[in-house]
Amino acid sequence: MYLLTLNCGSSSIKGKLFNIPSKEAPLEAVAKISVLNIGAKGDRVHVVVKWLDGLTEDVDERMGDGGQVEHRHIFPIILKHISSSGSGIAQDDIKYITHRIVHGGLNKRGLRVTKEDSHELEQMDALSRFAPLHNHHAVLCVRACLDAVPNSTQLLYFDTLFHQTLPPEVYTYALPPSNAPLAIPLRKYGFHGLSYSSIVHQLAQHTNTSPEALNLVVAHLGSGASACCIRAGKSIDTTMGLTPLEGLVGGTRTGNIDPTAIMHHTPDYASDAGLHDMHVTRGEWVMNRESGLLALAGTPNFGAITTKAFGVGPENEEKKLMRLAYDVFIDRVMAFVTQYLAKLLAQVPMRSVQLVFSGGIGENAARLRRDVLERLSWLGTTVSDANEARRGGAVRRISGDDSRLAAWVVETDEEGWCAQMAREDMGI
Amino acid sequence: MYLLTLNCGSSSIKGKLFNIPSKEAPLEAVAKISVLNIGAKGDRVHVVVKWLDGLTEDVDERMGDGGQVEHRHIFPIILKHISSSGSGIAQDDIKYITHRIVHGGLNKRGLRVTKEDSHELEQMDALSRFAPLHNHHAVLCVRACLDAVPNSTQLLYFDTLFHQTLPPEVYTYALPPSNAPLAIPLRKYGFHGLSYSSIVHQLAQHTNTSPEALNLVVAHLGSGASACCIRAGKSIDTTMGLTPLEGLVGGTRTGNIDPTAIMHHTPDYASDAGLHDMHVTRGEWVMNRESGLLALAGTPNFGAITTKAFGVGPENEEKKLMRLAYDVFIDRVMAFVTQYLAKLLAQVPMRSVQLVFSGGIGENAARLRRDVLERLSWLGTTVSDANEARRGGAVRRISGDDSRLAAWVVETDEEGWCAQMAREDMGI
Repeated sequence: MYLLTLNCGSSSIKGKLFNIPSKEAPLEAVAKISVLNIGAKGDRVHVVVKWLDGLTEDVDERMGDGGQVEHRHIFPIILKHISSSGSGIAQDDIKYITHRIVHGGLNKRGLRVTKEDSHELEQMDALSRFAPLHNHHAVLCVRACLDAVPNSTQLLYFDTLFHQTLPPEVYTYALPPSNAPLAIPLRKYGFHGLSYSSIVHQLAQHTNTSPEALNLVVAHLGSGASACCIRAGKSIDTTMGLTPLEGLVGGTRTGNIDPTAIMHHTPDYASDAGLHDMHVTRGEWVMNRESGLLALAGTPNFGAITTKAFGVGPENEEKKLMRLAYDVFIDRVMAFVTQYLAKLLAQVPMRSVQLVFSGGIGENAARLRRDVLERLSWLGTTVSDANEARRGGAVRRISGDDSRLAAWVVETDEEGWCAQMAREDMGI
Repeated sequence: MYLLTLNCGSSSIKGKLFNIPSKEAPLEAVAKISVLNIGAKGDRVHVVVKWLDGLTEDVDERMGDGGQVEHRHIFPIILKHISSSGSGIAQDDIKYITHRIVHGGLNKRGLRVTKEDSHELEQMDALSRFAPLHNHHAVLCVRACLDAVPNSTQLLYFDTLFHQTLPPEVYTYALPPSNAPLAIPLRKYGFHGLSYSSIVHQLAQHTNTSPEALNLVVAHLGSGASACCIRAGKSIDTTMGLTPLEGLVGGTRTGNIDPTAIMHHTPDYASDAGLHDMHVTRGEWVMNRESGLLALAGTPNFGAITTKAFGVGPENEEKKLMRLAYDVFIDRVMAFVTQYLAKLLAQVPMRSVQLVFSGGIGENAARLRRDVLERLSWLGTTVSDANEARRGGAVRRISGDDSRLAAWVVETDEEGWCAQMAREDMGI
């Protein structure tokens, strides 16, 4: 029996195929799938199936123009590649497909969808307004999977699930009741929850303790960036809000700004952004897709920004701009990391609190990690070059051995976490 | 020679009259002025002139319906009351009138306006879009004063002045360049600066040190609430932003929320709110005037909220609601107080950092102060009942004598600060 985990973005699909020979067997990933440029006019769709056994032949195919290709066209192709590559896997061997869905509203657990019973998908699509550029495409993916593998069960796991434990004083906005017809209450939901769940469980396993024993501040820093305050394994605060826009500066997101700033910035902020298949306003588009590091530095790529900001060469305007982008990013990271540390320290002893970096930036930007830890030296935090330089392992400690606050890098594994949840939920 | 300090709100005027007998004489307030319900249909305008010598007869007048009264109508009345009350002060004795103006854009100092040279007022009015419900009325006040006392010099002091020292990484929003015609750059400006200036100078005087020696986190908590991180006497971070909306929850303001929340909350957010004399959108109106504590508890009055939340009586829905409002408020206060403390502690030693409460809530809400300090006990902060109970004095220390972090209540004095600035600027 095989299980496929999917993470569908607006123009991309990432996935992993797992073999589950028996209930007792450990999870074993057998292939990685990646599709880029779906719907991207002028760019060719790029499909990769990489087999992890080192034997089966990989697929690396450039298809036609992305502008002609929709999510539903891709699945038959992926499935064909899987079954025809000499892997010996037939389409019908894929019994379960998990989907990472960004916004789950108030759902307290994942949803199960089959060809016979798919009514929940309507509800998920209604939430698209609150995760523009996310939910809608994920729902398209679910439908495409139901069509391509009719006998499979689709399991929907939400990035909001982990934050169902936020206390009311944290999730409540000081807004009056609304008369608008709303699919969900207007409150903080929080996102990146599958990543936070994965991190908590990986760190618990690595340190041989239970998730309930962990008090963490986690900075999940990637092109989407958020932070989470975790007490006894549960989310008690997080930066993202009603939508993923709130909180930290992202690759293309503003993060927190004066809520009226966009009204001055983009005079036609309330008009439709002109996306063909969903309603997104100009204001939402600008704040979600044209802002953040991209607006500050001309690129959302944090590695490129850091290299240019601190590389050799004379001081010039570009260098100054890159350093400003870096400084803005770390200023907001510090704001949330320190307030979350303080929130934990008001409740639990220092020795039980740990700091985790994750996400593409968190896992790779050693300079950022060092700068964060140095700004926490008043807490007795120390940095260890030797520990930082040590490679290998999805969980590694980077703080000095004498540090009062332990700091870690944890490579998040949302796919693995989805697969694990699926096994528990379905008893497989 | 007399100097009048004015603070004009949308429906109110507060002021103080100072006597300046000579350049060397200390500032001496001789009267307090208060006008309520200007423009408020259905409420009678209430004018009070209170003489501080205990001899001159006070004025306490209820005029006609506020809906019929504009700011320009009020000044001749105030001046008449001052000169006819037996005070012996003639209108022409008032040589200088200072005005607290909320938004000063990038102005690095106050502005001087006379009957002959009042062109700067246009610029101030252009900023009204960024301080809806503030700047425009203040400009009306300046014009009314120029008409009523043509020989007087008007001095405009801005709440943004104190924050001109914010570093770029703090004031920069991660937004792309805007094509809109803008009176000022879109960035964080910060407000309550006259209050922060007053507090820094009062605390320096009280502790017999220089403003430059002070590293403070100040929580100015009133119906408008903000916090400021002050290093060496200068603002290095603050909660309010492009407008006073950003940051903490206020009496009627949301503070930070997902910047797209209002788009879901108020479908006609971009339409005009219908104020007769200025352009304010529904979205701005809802977030600035119908939100905050008012939205959470049905009243913006923090004292009433605290009394109901923690008073005797059975647990019921109202009590729960009031406690939620209290909890939301303190949660956001802690978020900023702790991140600002951490910002200072990354730069200066703990013994040089102090915490100040000010504003109507900060000065009166002993319970809130205690709760804040208790949540900082991991920093070695202690609370002293004896110190808290001691009354009298505009500056008083409330933390325990053994507290590693000194905490103070400072009664802010924006009027006194404006008067002092006027004396320096005009050499009087």
